[in-house]
Amino acid sequence: MYKLNTKISIEKISGSNIVTSEDHVVIEEPLEIQLCSSTVDSSAAKSISITMRTPGHDQDLAVGFLFGESIIQNEDDIKSIDLVGETDTKYGLQNIVRVTIEPSVILDIEKLTRHFYTTSSCGVCGKTSIQALENNGCKPNQSKFSISQSKIIALPKKLQEEQMTFNKTGGLHAAAIFNSDGEIVLVREDVGRHNAVDKVIGSLFKSKKLPANEFGIIVSGRTSFELMQKTIVAGIPMLVAISAPSSLAIDLAQTYDITLIGFLRGEKFNIYSKKERVGC
Amino acid sequence: MYKLNTKISIEKISGSNIVTSEDHVVIEEPLEIQLCSSTVDSSAAKSISITMRTPGHDQDLAVGFLFGESIIQNEDDIKSIDLVGETDTKYGLQNIVRVTIEPSVILDIEKLTRHFYTTSSCGVCGKTSIQALENNGCKPNQSKFSISQSKIIALPKKLQEEQMTFNKTGGLHAAAIFNSDGEIVLVREDVGRHNAVDKVIGSLFKSKKLPANEFGIIVSGRTSFELMQKTIVAGIPMLVAISAPSSLAIDLAQTYDITLIGFLRGEKFNIYSKKERVGC
Repeated sequence: MYKLNTKISIEKISGSNIVTSEDHVVIEEPLEIQLCSSTVDSSAAKSISITMRTPGHDQDLAVGFLFGESIIQNEDDIKSIDLVGETDTKYGLQNIVRVTIEPSVILDIEKLTRHFYTTSSCGVCGKTSIQALENNGCKPNQSKFSISQSKIIALPKKLQEEQMTFNKTGGLHAAAIFNSDGEIVLVREDVGRHNAVDKVIGSLFKSKKLPANEFGIIVSGRTSFELMQKTIVAGIPMLVAISAPSSLAIDLAQTYDITLIGFLRGEKFNIYSKKERVGC
Repeated sequence: MYKLNTKISIEKISGSNIVTSEDHVVIEEPLEIQLCSSTVDSSAAKSISITMRTPGHDQDLAVGFLFGESIIQNEDDIKSIDLVGETDTKYGLQNIVRVTIEPSVILDIEKLTRHFYTTSSCGVCGKTSIQALENNGCKPNQSKFSISQSKIIALPKKLQEEQMTFNKTGGLHAAAIFNSDGEIVLVREDVGRHNAVDKVIGSLFKSKKLPANEFGIIVSGRTSFELMQKTIVAGIPMLVAISAPSSLAIDLAQTYDITLIGFLRGEKFNIYSKKERVGC
């Protein structure tokens, strides 16, 4: 049986109260979908998609994806669906689904891979992705940046005030840069949360403010591997999210000494890593 | 200047009250990021990413993405950033950003395109994507499926009860299939909302229940182009979302006669298309 979530130790802040406690976080791990024709050896399987997913029902995910892309039409198109690849040591998962297709199905792999559009980053699996960051010269963040609890608590209201369209549509994610006084100095919105973060970091890039060691970033939603990766590469020492982080976001934050804050609501928030940057 | 949102006509349901009204929806349009070396002609520019984004700060989005992927390191790496391509007739936008890189930057385009992982679907722009659905034989949905207002209003609570891990982590998106009695017959969760939908559709596929003409699908978050595309291909006539839809999701719903419901909260919801399937 699979696990949807895992337990970790966090700091829970509630007003002036700080408690170390255990909490559940949702597991995020990469899944590679491979396609293979039943007429050839499985070593000829082609990778056509890698997605960051929560483990469980991986075979459904793979065939649902292939059906949605009109690659397969019905059950008869499939010879077998197999979970393959090395079992990871952390959760005991296999992160590759190989779908073997009957010879009657015409596959143009070249066209398929062109057809998919790409979003962001990374390598073939979580470990590779973390290694990719190392290969790119990313090191643990040594910034002395800090911000007080009360200023963190005040951020969501300021973010909302800055959002130009939120009240009109309710449909946009926001990302914003704040300083150690808790002032928001840059905000961007987008229907996609990774786009909002790219816009913020692109703006810092153009104004030669990277690495942004003396700033934090706040996002209006959840935190995934992808947002944490962008934060690390930009040299930003603190990522604050209104909602939940994923397991992989926490792993990355711990590896790269990023202060990760989540569930920032009212007077409360959680600290998942590098709590030293949060002052009283 | 760019527009983040657009006005459309919708049906607002509040208890027994139905009002046709104007509402703002967030614009979602594709953006293609192209890379080009300053030593070659711009016709040799390579497409390295297509993302669904809200227009505005497109150049920031492009350089933020390239920086996050460690393709560019600083301002000196860039010769120019240009918005290019045909201006679309709907919003007057150009949907391609071409980043021209100085010859000092070593680009391995082949490696780059392998390096990015793919999520879902579609072609080079919104229009192409809609055409791709047509080419795949998708036709407007003629299902006679219907469900009453009161049963729609009851769905969110049922979805929450079905979610196995939501209360533990607060970090998962859910997608579920419901019938015309408002009963949830299948639910899947994932850190990615498109994955949750793929899992649901993959499960229907494996049990030979596609096209799912006699069911609706409900998602815990927002609705984008991508989720609507999956709904259409699966033959599902109704998509219900707790939060906001994007402009492109609405366009697709109207083209393919899908009933699209959004902002389902308490006794209230909005109908964006094909209202005939909602009964009293």
